[in-house]
Amino acid sequence: MNFTLNILGTASALPTVNRYPSAQVLDVRGRLFLIDCGEGVQMQIRRQHLSILKLDTVFISHLHGDHTFGLFGLLSTMSMLGRTAPLHIYAPEAFGKILSDFMASFGEGFKFDPVHHTVAADAPVKIFETRSLEVLAFPLRHRIETYGYLFREKTPMKNVRKEAIDRFGLTLSEIGSLKRGEDVVREDGTVICNSEAAYQPYEPRSFAYCSDTASFPELSGWIKGVDLLYHETTFPQEYEALAKATFHSTTVQAAACARDAGVGKLVAGHYSSRFPDVSFYLDEIRSIFPETVLGREGMVIDIPLKSLK
Amino acid sequence: MNFTLNILGTASALPTVNRYPSAQVLDVRGRLFLIDCGEGVQMQIRRQHLSILKLDTVFISHLHGDHTFGLFGLLSTMSMLGRTAPLHIYAPEAFGKILSDFMASFGEGFKFDPVHHTVAADAPVKIFETRSLEVLAFPLRHRIETYGYLFREKTPMKNVRKEAIDRFGLTLSEIGSLKRGEDVVREDGTVICNSEAAYQPYEPRSFAYCSDTASFPELSGWIKGVDLLYHETTFPQEYEALAKATFHSTTVQAAACARDAGVGKLVAGHYSSRFPDVSFYLDEIRSIFPETVLGREGMVIDIPLKSLK
Repeated sequence: MNFTLNILGTASALPTVNRYPSAQVLDVRGRLFLIDCGEGVQMQIRRQHLSILKLDTVFISHLHGDHTFGLFGLLSTMSMLGRTAPLHIYAPEAFGKILSDFMASFGEGFKFDPVHHTVAADAPVKIFETRSLEVLAFPLRHRIETYGYLFREKTPMKNVRKEAIDRFGLTLSEIGSLKRGEDVVREDGTVICNSEAAYQPYEPRSFAYCSDTASFPELSGWIKGVDLLYHETTFPQEYEALAKATFHSTTVQAAACARDAGVGKLVAGHYSSRFPDVSFYLDEIRSIFPETVLGREGMVIDIPLKSLK
Repeated sequence: MNFTLNILGTASALPTVNRYPSAQVLDVRGRLFLIDCGEGVQMQIRRQHLSILKLDTVFISHLHGDHTFGLFGLLSTMSMLGRTAPLHIYAPEAFGKILSDFMASFGEGFKFDPVHHTVAADAPVKIFETRSLEVLAFPLRHRIETYGYLFREKTPMKNVRKEAIDRFGLTLSEIGSLKRGEDVVREDGTVICNSEAAYQPYEPRSFAYCSDTASFPELSGWIKGVDLLYHETTFPQEYEALAKATFHSTTVQAAACARDAGVGKLVAGHYSSRFPDVSFYLDEIRSIFPETVLGREGMVIDIPLKSLK
């Protein structure tokens, strides 16, 4: 039942000796979701002891090279490793041509289909779901069409308390109603309140990915209360004008977004190559939002299950 | 006056945690020639303290992804770093579509032109030259159209011996003739033999790059006597049948080619991901061709100038 973020790359447009371009893997109960796919991602996945063949679905924020160029090698390697299941890739519309160009030049012999799903949203919209998870896309403000992604567990079925089964002599049908969160109303008029006999087993967990983007007021409302927020911090506060001009965020802007959204924890990244050492970013961010870590290659952030029993 | 090979990647199709896909940089007197361009090349170039902006010309052997996918990030980074000079890329014909597709999706704002020169050869042919260097392409035997490259210094102008200038009272015009390798014949019938008054200052150096290829008899004749040969050794000898089926070479085949060509030194590479440790390759190769090193990421092989004075 893990919900774990793996950070594969924290560089911005120009990678450095130690920083790879943007890529993260969110592991939700063993399903691996790749978010952005900068150059070198297939090697970073191996270094982090994740399985390339277990990658489930890909979400691309935007079509700048530092978020996409790793896809070519990754898809080729998946093919060589024998993948046959389709790979679903959620990305802006223009990815369709990039993918078909790639397949025309390099796709011979592929035994699986990479399938592009066009992402388009001017407010949060659900684009993907499994039994226990849903993914919403929302627009970011960058120089080209860009989306953030919100991964959140669905509210789980309720558990029925063992003692309530005995006390009320619950039938299977009544247990089903209680699991779905309903009250039980018996033919004799007795009401068994859901809260009396059942409980939500755990708090659904959530993660929001926001890169690349200028600061804008709606964003904190869209990611309200997530357990973990990745928000780009390309520049320190001193470079606010450059951040604005390039549609990126500063340390302080990311921190303010985390604070306004009331998130559990902020992880920073997408650092300008101007700064080989970004440790000073942390002071700037923590002055506004203390629950912050600086993302780095190889970092693993687990969001533990909060049991409500 | 250096002539130095930098090895950036020694993986075959599947990179590993420690091995990057194929790429090498040959530094000839400060001009940097990139040979093949696997994923991650821009970071490997930085790690090796080479300058991305000083890359002069690119030579691509063939259009499998492990030899080309690094180009996308490299070209984008060159653009961001402010390159304005055209970048000449020698590659098989099909690269034209790959490059134009790339520029259509990612080339907006580029301030330099990547220029594709089609390589086609069924025997060694000169495709590029500078004042002091020439590059020949020759066909290899792989599953798709593939070329090897031979880099060799031109025979230098001769130096005229200082003592000969005094002894013969040489005129400027006579010195020019001697530098060009000619004898001097004076009006009075005196002949000054070139060998008496001039000498070749150094032995031209040469490097041949052969990847990917099955073994074939003509190859050793085409790269006769090079100072340094890079020849792929995807498989150990035990896997000869697989090498044949996939149009690759074994350790022993590469060694035999080096021996038959009478090269100065052999550097191996393009190792199968089956073997995390390829040290046993070296014994197999050296049993036939002792002057061998196993290429590895970060390796620098200098061919010193052999002065002939």
